[in-house]
Amino acid sequence: MDLPRIAVDAMGGDDGVRVMVEGAALARRRHEGFKFLLVGDQKRIESALESHPGMREASEILHCDDVIAGDEQPSKAIRRAKTTSMGLTVNAVKEGAAGAAVSAGNTGALMAMSKLALRTMPGIDRPALAALMPTLEPHDVVMLDLGANTEANARNLVQFAVMGAAYSRIVNGFERPTVRLLNIGTEQIKGTDALRDAAAMLQAASSKEEGGLALDFAGFVESDKINRGETHVVVTDGFSGNIALKAIEGSARFVTDLLKQAFTSSIRSKIGFLVSRPATELLRHHLDPNNHNGAVFLGLNGVVVKSHGSATAAGVANAVAVTASLLKNKLTERIANDLAELGEGALRDNGKSAPAATPSCEAAE
Amino acid sequence: MDLPRIAVDAMGGDDGVRVMVEGAALARRRHEGFKFLLVGDQKRIESALESHPGMREASEILHCDDVIAGDEQPSKAIRRAKTTSMGLTVNAVKEGAAGAAVSAGNTGALMAMSKLALRTMPGIDRPALAALMPTLEPHDVVMLDLGANTEANARNLVQFAVMGAAYSRIVNGFERPTVRLLNIGTEQIKGTDALRDAAAMLQAASSKEEGGLALDFAGFVESDKINRGETHVVVTDGFSGNIALKAIEGSARFVTDLLKQAFTSSIRSKIGFLVSRPATELLRHHLDPNNHNGAVFLGLNGVVVKSHGSATAAGVANAVAVTASLLKNKLTERIANDLAELGEGALRDNGKSAPAATPSCEAAE
Repeated sequence: MDLPRIAVDAMGGDDGVRVMVEGAALARRRHEGFKFLLVGDQKRIESALESHPGMREASEILHCDDVIAGDEQPSKAIRRAKTTSMGLTVNAVKEGAAGAAVSAGNTGALMAMSKLALRTMPGIDRPALAALMPTLEPHDVVMLDLGANTEANARNLVQFAVMGAAYSRIVNGFERPTVRLLNIGTEQIKGTDALRDAAAMLQAASSKEEGGLALDFAGFVESDKINRGETHVVVTDGFSGNIALKAIEGSARFVTDLLKQAFTSSIRSKIGFLVSRPATELLRHHLDPNNHNGAVFLGLNGVVVKSHGSATAAGVANAVAVTASLLKNKLTERIANDLAELGEGALRDNGKSAPAATPSCEAAE
Repeated sequence: MDLPRIAVDAMGGDDGVRVMVEGAALARRRHEGFKFLLVGDQKRIESALESHPGMREASEILHCDDVIAGDEQPSKAIRRAKTTSMGLTVNAVKEGAAGAAVSAGNTGALMAMSKLALRTMPGIDRPALAALMPTLEPHDVVMLDLGANTEANARNLVQFAVMGAAYSRIVNGFERPTVRLLNIGTEQIKGTDALRDAAAMLQAASSKEEGGLALDFAGFVESDKINRGETHVVVTDGFSGNIALKAIEGSARFVTDLLKQAFTSSIRSKIGFLVSRPATELLRHHLDPNNHNGAVFLGLNGVVVKSHGSATAAGVANAVAVTASLLKNKLTERIANDLAELGEGALRDNGKSAPAATPSCEAAE
């Protein structure tokens, strides 16, 4: 099938143009049909394209001189949407020059620009940032929100659940993904009013005889179970989601650092390390964030994917593949359909829940 | 020196009386002066004591028939304070029959009973649950609150910082522990109003020329840095703290489970595992929660330590040792002194911050 082309911010990411172009080329080697709009410095993009035959005719270059800095305030960044590679990449989706956008630049700026250019889709109050994380099972777990909103009320959480389930269906192929709300206990009385209200709303909406949501709501999950693989979608507010995501990443790095210390602590353990190399390589592969690269801004009128700043070309290729699969499977339309199933009634706010979501990125308003 | 005796809830914990008594005996073997009030079924305690010569004369037994169940609602549990081993253990501190209490029972019930019996100390609005976690450095990091309050305002967070610093000083010996607030970014504008206000209050109170707090406030920390060892005390509300703690535990287990899978995936890696056993044992030892056992309820008129339900005798011994060192170093008085240094002015709530702490344990009120 003919996929709309993907706009790639060629200037974002720690390693710049070469990695972004190589990543796109890698993704294209696996999926012939991919076409690109590469946004950034024309000379450097053309030079990077030379190593990838076939990519030149699959790509159009949109030249610009300017780049959003990694530490630039979102509020400043959005004023430079018309002159920067990130701004032009997102704008290409808005204007129909591309079907989706990929950037490895500053997350806050990308979120702010995307919200401003694409706006939230009907039925969604707040977009959310969703990412994939490895589990003990063959499939990844989808977690959201990871920082688009510092707070979320019950209605926001229900919308996140609908969007996360749609994402899980596309990337993991589950017809009715198992969805849980992140909480500090699994008993019904645990957590905040927003969590308890969202649980009641999801319970009602997912257990209806006819219609209802195409997801299995299974109550609360504690953060030590996120990676077990029993839950396909973990829903939370952006503050807790960010805390949980980074705690998991930091802890995994902590354990592997300890392992390195241990393996270099004696000659014997160095030999052991060499012998068991295939085993530790397997671990490294499984934990390598490049294999789960590609966080998605859900709830916008268009697909925007964030590639990790330190992603390798293989990581970028994964993010591009995720982007393509969201395009192919019409993510935005699926979410719209699910919202229609849900109906406005189920999203009625009972007034008891937390204040409306507070955007963590002040520039986004 | 003559330490006040320690009341031990002999019935709490997954493995019951034998483990609790053996843990106390282990701790006493390292510190001769320890004396105990063992609370629970007299016959079973006496039978457990037989294996530990010397423990009998160091211990008094307080008999009771009743036990708080692991899944018992705190609101129900507090009604049984006069007849259960947990209730009588905490009460012994209130009535001066013991200097401190240790229990491996139901955390919510222990918290509720402790708050009711001992009350919060003057100058503290809400007690907090603090625990030790391993780092890449030789010292542990203190993190609080881990679930005593689902929300915390700026004033609560500042009080948690003072209490956490006092705890770190005692267990790790730092004169001025480095304290950071857990947040989703390190820039000043990140996070909630409560976090930003608490940061301003701590900044002012720790940088005073004279007096001021005996801690170095170093701004915000993200959850992937908790285990690096650069921060001695991580301060957060009970919801985020619980999410971060369990995410770290779950992720560490996830990585070690993957490692096990990898090491048993081929003959070669099995051999490698055997050769590198000392290295993986080192890792196991470092990650073993028993070596960091003993979470403390800070901010009460008395010392109450929670031992992990699944702790081994060695773990219980650690919790008892922590308890003794808090007694010896007069934790409660130290916190009171620090609060006096801080002065009420520094804790003035500027009205902008989040609502006052909501106890996550409804029975505690």
